[in-house]
Amino acid sequence: MLFPPDRCYTDPVECYAYAYDNSRKILPPDAVVFPLCTEEIRQTLALCNQQHIPLVPRGRGTGTAGGSLPEKGGIAMSLERMVNIVSVDPANRVIVTEPGVINQTIQEAAKPHGFFWPPDPSSAMFSTVGGNIATCAGGPHAVKYGTTRDHVLGLKAVTGSGQLITTGCYTTKGVVGYDLTRLLIGSEGTLAIITEATLKLTALPEAVAGITAHFQDLPSCTAAIVNIMSLSRLPSALEFLDSGSLGLIRNRYPDLLPSESHAMLMIEVDGARDELPNAIANIISACSSDFLIEAKEISDTRNLWKARKALSPLLREIAPKKINEDVVVPVTRLPEFLRGLKRLSQQYQLHNVNFGHAGNGNIHVNLLIDPDNAEEVRRAEYCLNDIFDLVISLRGTLSGEHGIGSEKRAFVSKEIDDGTMTLMKNIKNLFDPNNILNPGKLFP
Amino acid sequence: MLFPPDRCYTDPVECYAYAYDNSRKILPPDAVVFPLCTEEIRQTLALCNQQHIPLVPRGRGTGTAGGSLPEKGGIAMSLERMVNIVSVDPANRVIVTEPGVINQTIQEAAKPHGFFWPPDPSSAMFSTVGGNIATCAGGPHAVKYGTTRDHVLGLKAVTGSGQLITTGCYTTKGVVGYDLTRLLIGSEGTLAIITEATLKLTALPEAVAGITAHFQDLPSCTAAIVNIMSLSRLPSALEFLDSGSLGLIRNRYPDLLPSESHAMLMIEVDGARDELPNAIANIISACSSDFLIEAKEISDTRNLWKARKALSPLLREIAPKKINEDVVVPVTRLPEFLRGLKRLSQQYQLHNVNFGHAGNGNIHVNLLIDPDNAEEVRRAEYCLNDIFDLVISLRGTLSGEHGIGSEKRAFVSKEIDDGTMTLMKNIKNLFDPNNILNPGKLFP
Repeated sequence: MLFPPDRCYTDPVECYAYAYDNSRKILPPDAVVFPLCTEEIRQTLALCNQQHIPLVPRGRGTGTAGGSLPEKGGIAMSLERMVNIVSVDPANRVIVTEPGVINQTIQEAAKPHGFFWPPDPSSAMFSTVGGNIATCAGGPHAVKYGTTRDHVLGLKAVTGSGQLITTGCYTTKGVVGYDLTRLLIGSEGTLAIITEATLKLTALPEAVAGITAHFQDLPSCTAAIVNIMSLSRLPSALEFLDSGSLGLIRNRYPDLLPSESHAMLMIEVDGARDELPNAIANIISACSSDFLIEAKEISDTRNLWKARKALSPLLREIAPKKINEDVVVPVTRLPEFLRGLKRLSQQYQLHNVNFGHAGNGNIHVNLLIDPDNAEEVRRAEYCLNDIFDLVISLRGTLSGEHGIGSEKRAFVSKEIDDGTMTLMKNIKNLFDPNNILNPGKLFP
Repeated sequence: MLFPPDRCYTDPVECYAYAYDNSRKILPPDAVVFPLCTEEIRQTLALCNQQHIPLVPRGRGTGTAGGSLPEKGGIAMSLERMVNIVSVDPANRVIVTEPGVINQTIQEAAKPHGFFWPPDPSSAMFSTVGGNIATCAGGPHAVKYGTTRDHVLGLKAVTGSGQLITTGCYTTKGVVGYDLTRLLIGSEGTLAIITEATLKLTALPEAVAGITAHFQDLPSCTAAIVNIMSLSRLPSALEFLDSGSLGLIRNRYPDLLPSESHAMLMIEVDGARDELPNAIANIISACSSDFLIEAKEISDTRNLWKARKALSPLLREIAPKKINEDVVVPVTRLPEFLRGLKRLSQQYQLHNVNFGHAGNGNIHVNLLIDPDNAEEVRRAEYCLNDIFDLVISLRGTLSGEHGIGSEKRAFVSKEIDDGTMTLMKNIKNLFDPNNILNPGKLFP
């Protein structure tokens, strides 16, 4: 036996907790194992290769694209017990960590030294560094700080064939060999299982300020987004709520928002304390138009996200099985994209609400469907297809941070041409010749 | 004929100009071709695959590691005539360009819109974007802005097998498929020939200030480096000259430097005008010690690099065939590394001067040897081997920006273990099954 009983579940009841992620599909594994070290991972992979058993690595299962679902049964390998922070090296701005450490724990380890690790998916309180790396997680601060791929210096991993590899380096510069670090980042557990990550830290800003802006219509709001993104100082967050989102919030919290607001921006700037007043003034001025209702600094930045935070539970309440996308278009194409979305939702008679990381052009499109209404589900499928076509026609991408997993693989060939796709499949085959690791994910 | 006579050289005299790079080795190709478009590149690759002819892509041949040398003869493919900037899109902060465009040309296209492209190798006035990408070029500003891999959104390329691929996206976020963009960045023309690059632009800082600091001894200087890199605001450049470098400069320009200076820092900070005084004060204070001679802001930032710029021609003059390395160690290990270097140069009785991008721990170690002195050359080889061992023992990397090419391949296995190396070789084989593209480079 590779694992003692407390680190190997086979009872279906115990396995059930590892049958789903935030895609809300349920596909139970035949077993769940909890390795504590690289050698156990290597040996499990050896066994799986020998017996041709699918092996699906997972962090805390917070992904929304089905990337950690054991679709073909087999073994779910939860990295949640590899929770050691190997070293904290503030002078070099580096933390080395095992994959099961929670994002928030990294932030807590970095903070006393004046640092943070920029990836901040909304799951940061629960999701693991390994999962963040596997999906190349982003979050609201990506507009200024970039995504996970910009904040990892090196990795240790075991490939699908059971080979231990060490990628990247411990320093902020390094060009020796191919960049396998970033090849693994975002590969959704299809190439290798990450056993250790060397994270690059960033200095915490001295001060943070928040601005909310409300607009009478969508065009004035999207114009403001484009203006703000033309400023030389990037905001540290630039989040958008459309009129559907605001309507939901207003129904529950009638006094939270100006009654005539049909689009809202939540904008954060950070940096040295002295420089913020100027940055705030520039942003407020970038919002101005005849259809601006108000743009103002808020006194307590904790209130900046109030409307956004109110929205998520409301959405879950009214549409527990909503379709949640995270498409991206170039910022200047946002007006066109949001107009197109409106047209498509009318055409397919679907209720949708849209919000997200406008500074990256990364919009969470939520189709609020009733999954028990087969006809509506079919309409949603057609609509989604058209939305993706629209995104690609605007030079966008199908996913900014959620990944492909199982949810979006039917659409990948809209974005990736056949030749490039074949090359990616061959890379998969090179790392994992028996197709053991997370089989069937990512590819159409 | 694939190419008209004016875009295909076979005369050895004409080919000679494509026989070398800045590694100063001379290895002539049998032919030089100058494609103007992707289709010509694809057809050349098809021919080379059919006839098993080596094909070595090159930009302007400014690399120092021999990456573009046609070691095995065959065809040198110069991308220098693919010089179209496809589009400048300031609102989305993106430039799409062909590979032969000079780095400086990109800067000139970006500047009127308030942007720049951060990679700034010292060759930026002459080197091409394609070459910058192939080597993952850095430069002095990498300490704040990162290297080439942080500033490319997507690529078009033709693989060694002749397959057209499109990687990455046009937006600042995107996680669809494997990250082939960064797999190609730094791959030194061994995997694919880049035909188009989508570059991410960065806002020009409002203001720049410069500080020079002189120290009586090396330990106080390296302590200052560590202190500066602990500040929350990173300098935009942090360059170091050791006492050997200063001695050379002083011999020629007796009045340029304080007579008792044995180590010098050139420090640049950038950002909003208002915030610079504070940043400068913090840096000057981080330099302070009993052995600081002076640390002061300089009135004209153009003078900041005066000493550094004086050094390069002097080095070329006294040691035209010097060995020039670009090793990296974690910043906190710089004191130990520079002490070790001194010990090794004494042990092997070699004259060396060291300078470089201290903020990244990236030091250009120059062994000033006489190439006609066989015994000295042998000593230098032993010394270099020990230097690389020292670097690895300090968790460093063999190359921060020059790459491996042919110059450093004998040492790569000090850094990359066998399993990881085999995987990299298999990736090479996948992209380029007939080993046509830049054969023999990068690997031991």
